[in-house]
Amino acid sequence: MDAEPLVQDLLSGKVKLYAVDALAGSSQRATQLRRTFLEHKAGVSLPTIGASVLDFDAVSGKNAENTIGAAQIPMGVAGPLWVRGDYATGSYYVPLATTEGALIASTNRGCSVITASGGAVSRVLADTMTRAPLFRVPGIEKGKELAQWVSDHFEEVRAVADAQTRFTRLTGCTPFVTGRNLFLRFEFSTGDSMAMNSATKASDAIAAFIEERFPWASLVAVSGNMCVDKKPSAINLVMGRGKSVAAEVLIPEELVAAKLKTTAARMEEVCYRKIFVGSARAGSLGGFNAHVANIAAAFFAATGQDLAHVVEAAQGITTMENVDGDLYASVTLPDVPLATFGAGTQLPTQREALSILGLSGSSDEPGARCRALAEVFAAVVLAGELSLIGALASRDLTRAHMSLGRARP
Amino acid sequence: MDAEPLVQDLLSGKVKLYAVDALAGSSQRATQLRRTFLEHKAGVSLPTIGASVLDFDAVSGKNAENTIGAAQIPMGVAGPLWVRGDYATGSYYVPLATTEGALIASTNRGCSVITASGGAVSRVLADTMTRAPLFRVPGIEKGKELAQWVSDHFEEVRAVADAQTRFTRLTGCTPFVTGRNLFLRFEFSTGDSMAMNSATKASDAIAAFIEERFPWASLVAVSGNMCVDKKPSAINLVMGRGKSVAAEVLIPEELVAAKLKTTAARMEEVCYRKIFVGSARAGSLGGFNAHVANIAAAFFAATGQDLAHVVEAAQGITTMENVDGDLYASVTLPDVPLATFGAGTQLPTQREALSILGLSGSSDEPGARCRALAEVFAAVVLAGELSLIGALASRDLTRAHMSLGRARP
Amino acid sequence: MDAEPLVQDLLSGKVKLYAVDALAGSSQRATQLRRTFLEHKAGVSLPTIGASVLDFDAVSGKNAENTIGAAQIPMGVAGPLWVRGDYATGSYYVPLATTEGALIASTNRGCSVITASGGAVSRVLADTMTRAPLFRVPGIEKGKELAQWVSDHFEEVRAVADAQTRFTRLTGCTPFVTGRNLFLRFEFSTGDSMAMNSATKASDAIAAFIEERFPWASLVAVSGNMCVDKKPSAINLVMGRGKSVAAEVLIPEELVAAKLKTTAARMEEVCYRKIFVGSARAGSLGGFNAHVANIAAAFFAATGQDLAHVVEAAQGITTMENVDGDLYASVTLPDVPLATFGAGTQLPTQREALSILGLSGSSDEPGARCRALAEVFAAVVLAGELSLIGALASRDLTRAHMSLGRARP
Amino acid sequence: MDAEPLVQDLLSGKVKLYAVDALAGSSQRATQLRRTFLEHKAGVSLPTIGASVLDFDAVSGKNAENTIGAAQIPMGVAGPLWVRGDYATGSYYVPLATTEGALIASTNRGCSVITASGGAVSRVLADTMTRAPLFRVPGIEKGKELAQWVSDHFEEVRAVADAQTRFTRLTGCTPFVTGRNLFLRFEFSTGDSMAMNSATKASDAIAAFIEERFPWASLVAVSGNMCVDKKPSAINLVMGRGKSVAAEVLIPEELVAAKLKTTAARMEEVCYRKIFVGSARAGSLGGFNAHVANIAAAFFAATGQDLAHVVEAAQGITTMENVDGDLYASVTLPDVPLATFGAGTQLPTQREALSILGLSGSSDEPGARCRALAEVFAAVVLAGELSLIGALASRDLTRAHMSLGRARP
Repeated sequence: MDAEPLVQDLLSGKVKLYAVDALAGSSQRATQLRRTFLEHKAGVSLPTIGASVLDFDAVSGKNAENTIGAAQIPMGVAGPLWVRGDYATGSYYVPLATTEGALIASTNRGCSVITASGGAVSRVLADTMTRAPLFRVPGIEKGKELAQWVSDHFEEVRAVADAQTRFTRLTGCTPFVTGRNLFLRFEFSTGDSMAMNSATKASDAIAAFIEERFPWASLVAVSGNMCVDKKPSAINLVMGRGKSVAAEVLIPEELVAAKLKTTAARMEEVCYRKIFVGSARAGSLGGFNAHVANIAAAFFAATGQDLAHVVEAAQGITTMENVDGDLYASVTLPDVPLATFGAGTQLPTQREALSILGLSGSSDEPGARCRALAEVFAAVVLAGELSLIGALASRDLTRAHMSLGRARP
Repeated sequence: MDAEPLVQDLLSGKVKLYAVDALAGSSQRATQLRRTFLEHKAGVSLPTIGASVLDFDAVSGKNAENTIGAAQIPMGVAGPLWVRGDYATGSYYVPLATTEGALIASTNRGCSVITASGGAVSRVLADTMTRAPLFRVPGIEKGKELAQWVSDHFEEVRAVADAQTRFTRLTGCTPFVTGRNLFLRFEFSTGDSMAMNSATKASDAIAAFIEERFPWASLVAVSGNMCVDKKPSAINLVMGRGKSVAAEVLIPEELVAAKLKTTAARMEEVCYRKIFVGSARAGSLGGFNAHVANIAAAFFAATGQDLAHVVEAAQGITTMENVDGDLYASVTLPDVPLATFGAGTQLPTQREALSILGLSGSSDEPGARCRALAEVFAAVVLAGELSLIGALASRDLTRAHMSLGRARP
Repeated sequence: MDAEPLVQDLLSGKVKLYAVDALAGSSQRATQLRRTFLEHKAGVSLPTIGASVLDFDAVSGKNAENTIGAAQIPMGVAGPLWVRGDYATGSYYVPLATTEGALIASTNRGCSVITASGGAVSRVLADTMTRAPLFRVPGIEKGKELAQWVSDHFEEVRAVADAQTRFTRLTGCTPFVTGRNLFLRFEFSTGDSMAMNSATKASDAIAAFIEERFPWASLVAVSGNMCVDKKPSAINLVMGRGKSVAAEVLIPEELVAAKLKTTAARMEEVCYRKIFVGSARAGSLGGFNAHVANIAAAFFAATGQDLAHVVEAAQGITTMENVDGDLYASVTLPDVPLATFGAGTQLPTQREALSILGLSGSSDEPGARCRALAEVFAAVVLAGELSLIGALASRDLTRAHMSLGRARP
Repeated sequence: MDAEPLVQDLLSGKVKLYAVDALAGSSQRATQLRRTFLEHKAGVSLPTIGASVLDFDAVSGKNAENTIGAAQIPMGVAGPLWVRGDYATGSYYVPLATTEGALIASTNRGCSVITASGGAVSRVLADTMTRAPLFRVPGIEKGKELAQWVSDHFEEVRAVADAQTRFTRLTGCTPFVTGRNLFLRFEFSTGDSMAMNSATKASDAIAAFIEERFPWASLVAVSGNMCVDKKPSAINLVMGRGKSVAAEVLIPEELVAAKLKTTAARMEEVCYRKIFVGSARAGSLGGFNAHVANIAAAFFAATGQDLAHVVEAAQGITTMENVDGDLYASVTLPDVPLATFGAGTQLPTQREALSILGLSGSSDEPGARCRALAEVFAAVVLAGELSLIGALASRDLTRAHMSLGRARP
C-alpha cells in the first residue's frame, strides 16, 4: 500500500488511527503516516515530534499505541552524590529529566552538600508490590470465611500465583471484608522489575482459582482500589508499596553555613513550620515534605519509570533537626514503585540514563539492582529537600539582614 | 577552549558540572561535553540521549541545568474526541506520551465511545492559582490582626501583587492562623500560563510589603505548604487549585454493548465497589477514580506541563450511573494546574503537541486557551476512566459466561 | 390504666416500648414502667438508673425517647483557669464529666500553669454552622447553572431561610458540583444555640424553594455529608464549622520547671516528635494533638453539648515552642459545635454546670455567650495538652536521671 | 475539721481544690464541700449535680478528681434487636444515653426493621488494643536495627509485657522508622477490659527493657500518636484497633415498604450519593456513614465506655444495596475500643446498663463478653444507619409525590 492513500483514508475517516500499523506493514511507517495525517488535519507541522531515535516497531504495543513520534524532555545530571546504602555505595551522577528551570541546579546543590558531608545513608525498609482484587461475596460471613480460606491455603494460592511469572513471587495477603465486598491485598516480591503486570496476572490467576472453588465469590475487578495503584491513599502510606525507602545525612555546621548560607536552627524552623504545621493545617495525607514530587518526576522521566507512579512516590515525610549546630535531615518514602528492568526502562534514552548509574537491567541477585536504584532515589530526594529548605531558610536570613539594614539611619 | 581538556578537568574534579556552560562558551557545547564526561566516567555510551532536537542554549537555565541531552518518551494520539466545552468545542486528537503499553489504546477506545455518544460536556468550574506564604507572628492575636489588615487593605495588597507580572492578578486571600504561624493563601488568575513563578513573585512582593509594615511579622517561607503545590492535600480538593474542571457523558445502552461489551448496570457496580467502597476502605483522600493519574501523566508529558503536578491532577472523583440502561459517567477534577504558554510548553515537541490541539501559546482573551485545554483534559480523562471500568466490567461478564459455560454438562 | 398490666403487656409483646408513654398517661410514669419491664425481662435490678433528678415529661421527645432513667457520669472541676478572650475574661472553674481517672487532675494542673502564667489568650476565629443539602441534577451543566442561580438570588434564598427560625441566619453558600450531584453547603450564624435543627429546617425550606423553581433538581438528602456533621472530614478542618477557636499561652521558664518539672526544650521536642511526626506517619487528618478528644468529651458531657460532636471538636493542631527557655503553646480548633442554649444545655445538671461558668442560656448580644464558652473551651483544651505533654517530657527527664543513676556503680 | 472553714479556705485560695479530699477526710464529703464552694463563688445553686447515686470515695482517683457530683444524661432503650453474632445471639434491649431528641426513637425503628428481618449478622473481624511508644534513635540505620531486634527477640519482649498485667497479652509489633524516630506499634489482646492502662504499663516496661539494652534509644513518649488513641487516623482505619466489627442484614422488600416507607432502590441511591460521593467530596477519612457517631456516643455514654473513644468508633463504612427489591445493608467499624469490665463500666448506672444486655463484667473465656458487646454495638449502629437513610429516602419519596400533586391543576 502507498502512503498517501492511507493518509487520505485517515482524513476521510475510512481508516481508524489504530488500524494503520497493520495496513502500513510496520509501526515505524505507521508512526510517520499518522503524523502526516495530523499535520494535514490540524494544518500544523510536527518535525520535532518526528525526529526521534525510537524504533516504533519495538515500541508499539509494548510502550505506546497510535504512535506519532516522541516527546523530548531535557535531561541533565546532578552529582556527584555519595550514597551509603546496603545495595548502592559510592558516588553517583543522577540523571533527571524536567522542563522546570532551577530544579536540577537546586538538586545538584543538595548533592554537593550531602557528598561533602560524607554521604547519605540510605536504606530499603520494605520491598513489596501489591494488587488487591475485589470480589463480590454474599456478605460478611462468607467474606470472612473466604479470607480465612486463603490464609489456610496460602501455599496452594502461592503456587497458583508463582506459576504465572518468572520473577514475581507471592509473599503475603491482607484481607479486608466490607459488606458484600472482599478485598484481598496480595503482596509480591518482584525482582528488578516494577511488575504491576506480573502482579496483575498472578492476581487474575488466583481470582480464577478462587472463583472455581467458591461459586458465590465473583471477581468484580482485579484491582479493587486497595492496591493502591496511582492514587493517593493512606493504606500505602501505612503498609508500604513498591520500595519503602529512607535516607538521612548529618551536615556539619560549617557546611550548612558555607554551602546553604544558613544555620541548622533556621532550617529546622522552616521544616517545622512549613512541612509539619503547614501540611497538617492543609489536611495533607502523606505530603509532609517540601517538593519530593519534583525530584520524583524528574528521576522517573529520566529512568523510564511509570510517570503516573509519581502520585505514590511523592508521599513522604521530611525531617530536619538542629543537632548542636549540625543539621540532621531525613526523608521517609513508603511507596516508591521502581524498576531497572522491563517497560519504560528498556527504551533507548531511559536505558542509557540507568546505565549512567550502572543500574540498568536485572541483577544476579533478583531485586538487588532495583533496591540500589531505590537507595539512590531516596538520597537524591533528600538532596532536593535540603536545597529547597536551605534556600527558604537563607532567604529568610537575608531578609532579616536587609530589614536590620533598613532600620539603620 | 578545547573540548578534551574540559572533559579532563571534569574527570579530575577540577571543574564542576555546572561550570561547564560558561567555560565552553555555549550550553549546546557544554551539553555534549558533560555527556562525553559521563561516558568516560561510567564507561557507557549515550548516543540516544545525545540525539535530541533541543537547542540547549535556549533550554539551559530556563528548563533544565547540567544538561546532557533529552529523554525521549513515545508519543501517540487518542481521538477523535468530541468535546462540548465552553471554550473547547469540536473534535480533538489528543497527544499522549507514555511508556506504558495499552494506555493510549485504551484511552482511544474511551474517546471513540464518547464521540459516538455525541461528545463529552466539559466545564471549568473554577480557575485559580494559589501561593500561601507563611509568616512567623508573635501569636494568635497578632496573626488575627494581620489577617484582618490584609482583608481591610486588599486593594493596596492587590496593587503590590499586580505590579509584579503582566498576566497574573490577585483575586483573593484566605488566612489561616495557627499558633505563631500565619498562612495567607493568595489566589491569582493567571491567563494562559500556569504561573507558579508569577504567583511566587507576587507573593514575595506582598510579603516584603507586609514585613515593612509589621516588624513583628517575618516571612518563614514563600510557600507554607498550604498552597498546596505538588503534594496531596485536602485543601486543594475542597477549595480547588489551578483549573477545577469536570466532564460528563451519557452513553446510549447500545453503544455500551457494542463498544464496551458490557452493560451500564455492570459498569455502575464496578465503579461503586472499586472506586467508592475500595478507595474509602483504603483511606484515600481524593483518589476516588480508576486511573486518572495515567491519563494526566501522559497528557502532561506530551504537552509540556510540570510533571510533578500529576500529584495534584490525579485527585478526582469518577461517577458512573445506570440511567435506564444508558450509562451516565462523569469526572470531577478540582486541582489541575495547566498552561498553554510558558515553561515546558515552549519546548519544541511539546509546543507541536499543543498545536495538534490548536491550543499552543496565549490567547487574546487571557486564559481562554488554557481553559479550553482544561476542558479537553477533563474529557480525555473521562475517556480513560470509561475504558478501564468498561474493561473490568466486560471481563467480569466474560468470566460470568465462562463460569456458566463450565457449569453445563 | 394500672402499672402492672402495662408491664405484662410489654413482657408479652402486646405493647411496644414507645407506646407506653401515651398509655401510661405520662412519660415520668412510662419511664418507671419500662424500667420495671427490663428488670423482669433481664432478671436484673436497675435502682441507680432509676434514681435520677430528671423530669421525663420534659425530657421525653425533646432529649430522649423510650426513657428508663439516666446515666450518671462523675463531674469534677478544673480551675481556676484564667482566660483572656474577647468574650470570656477572668477566672473560670471548668466543669468536666468523665469516667477516666486522672483526666480532671491532669487538666487541673494545666489550668494552674496557665493561670500562673497570666492566663491563656483565646480567640474565636470564625463562627458558622453548616448544612449541605444534596440535590440530584441532570448533570454538570445544570448543576453549575443552579449553583450560579443560588449565588445570583442569594437575598431571596436568605429570606426563605431566615423566615424559618428566630436566631439562625443564612450567611453564605459554597456549591460543589460533582456529576449528577449538587451539594450546597449553607452557612449560618446561630446565636447561642448549636442550631443543627434550625439549620436543617432552613435548608429544608431552601430545598423546597429550589425544587419548586427547578423541576429537574430533586433533594436527595437534606444533609449530603458535606456539612459535615459528626464525621471526620477535611472540609471542616479547612473551612471551619461551629466555632473555630484558638488559644495560646507563654509559660515562663521557671513555671515550666516548677509546675511541669521539665523544660521548654523537652516539651517542644515531645510535641514535634509525637504530635507532628507521629500523626503525619499515622496518616492522621486533623489529629495533630495529644488528647483534645479527652477534654472535649468531658466538657461536652458536663455542659450538655451533643456528645457525637466530639468527633468534630477533637480535630485540632497543638504547637509547643521553646522561646528562649519559656514555653509557647497553642491549640487551634477549627470545628467546635457548641451551645449555651437549647437541647442538652437545658437539662438540670448541664444547666447548672454552665451556670458555674456563668454561661447558661442566651445573651442579649446573640452569640456572645456561646463564643465566651468557646473561648473557655479552647483554654481548657490547652490546659489538657500542656499537662499531658509536660508529663511525657518530665517522665522522659526522670528516666534520663534514673538511667544515669543505674549506670553508676 | 469543720466544713465551713474549708469552704472559707477554698474561697480565700488558701486551699486548692484537689487538696480538699485529704483535708475533709473523705471524697464524699469533699465533693459536697467543693460544690458548696462553687455555689458561693459563682453565686449559683447546684442541687441536681449534687443529687447523685455515686459513692465518691469509690469514684475519686479511679474515675474522676475534684468531684462535685454527677452529670445526668437521659437513658432510654432501643429494641428488641435481634443479633446473630458468634458471641451475642438473641434479642437485646440496647441502653442509649443521649440529650438529642429523636435519636433513640430513630434507632428503635432501625432495631424493629432488623428484628423483623430475622436479625443482623454481626462479626468481630479483629480484636487488638495498641500502644505505640516513640523512641528517639540516632537515625534510620539504628532505628532499623532496633526494629529488627524486637522482631528477633519477640518472645523475650512478650515476657516483659505479659508480666505487667493479668489479662493483657502482647500479640504483635509493627515498627515504623522515620528519621530519628522509631515507633513500635504494639498489639495486645485484652480480655474483657479496654485495657489502655494495661497496654500503657506493658509498653512502658518494654521501653525500659529496650532502653537498658540500647543506650542510644530513648523513650520520648509512651504514646507516639501512632497507636492512635482518640484521634482520627488512617492507621486505625487500615490496621484496626480495639474491636474491628461488622454487621449486616437483608431486609425483604415488603418490610422496607412497611416499616421504612420507601424502597431499596431509593435507599441505595441515598447511600451512594450522600455517603460515598458526599464524603469523598468532603475529603473524609473513614467517615463514610450517615451518623455512626450518634449511636456510638449514646451507647458509650450508657455503658461506661470512654467517651473520647467516640472519635475512633465513629470511623466506619456503611453500604446499602438493592438486591432485587430487598435491601442489603452493612456497617464496617474497624476501630471500636470497648470494655465490659473496668474503668467506667464499674460505675453504678453504667454497670446496670450493661446488665440489661447481660454483658457486665468479665467472662470465663477472656474477651468473649466484650466481643459480644461489640457484636451488639455493630448491630445497633446498623439500626441507626438504616433508620436515618430510610427517613431521607422516604422524605424524598414524599416530596416527589407532593411535587406531582402540586403540578396537577
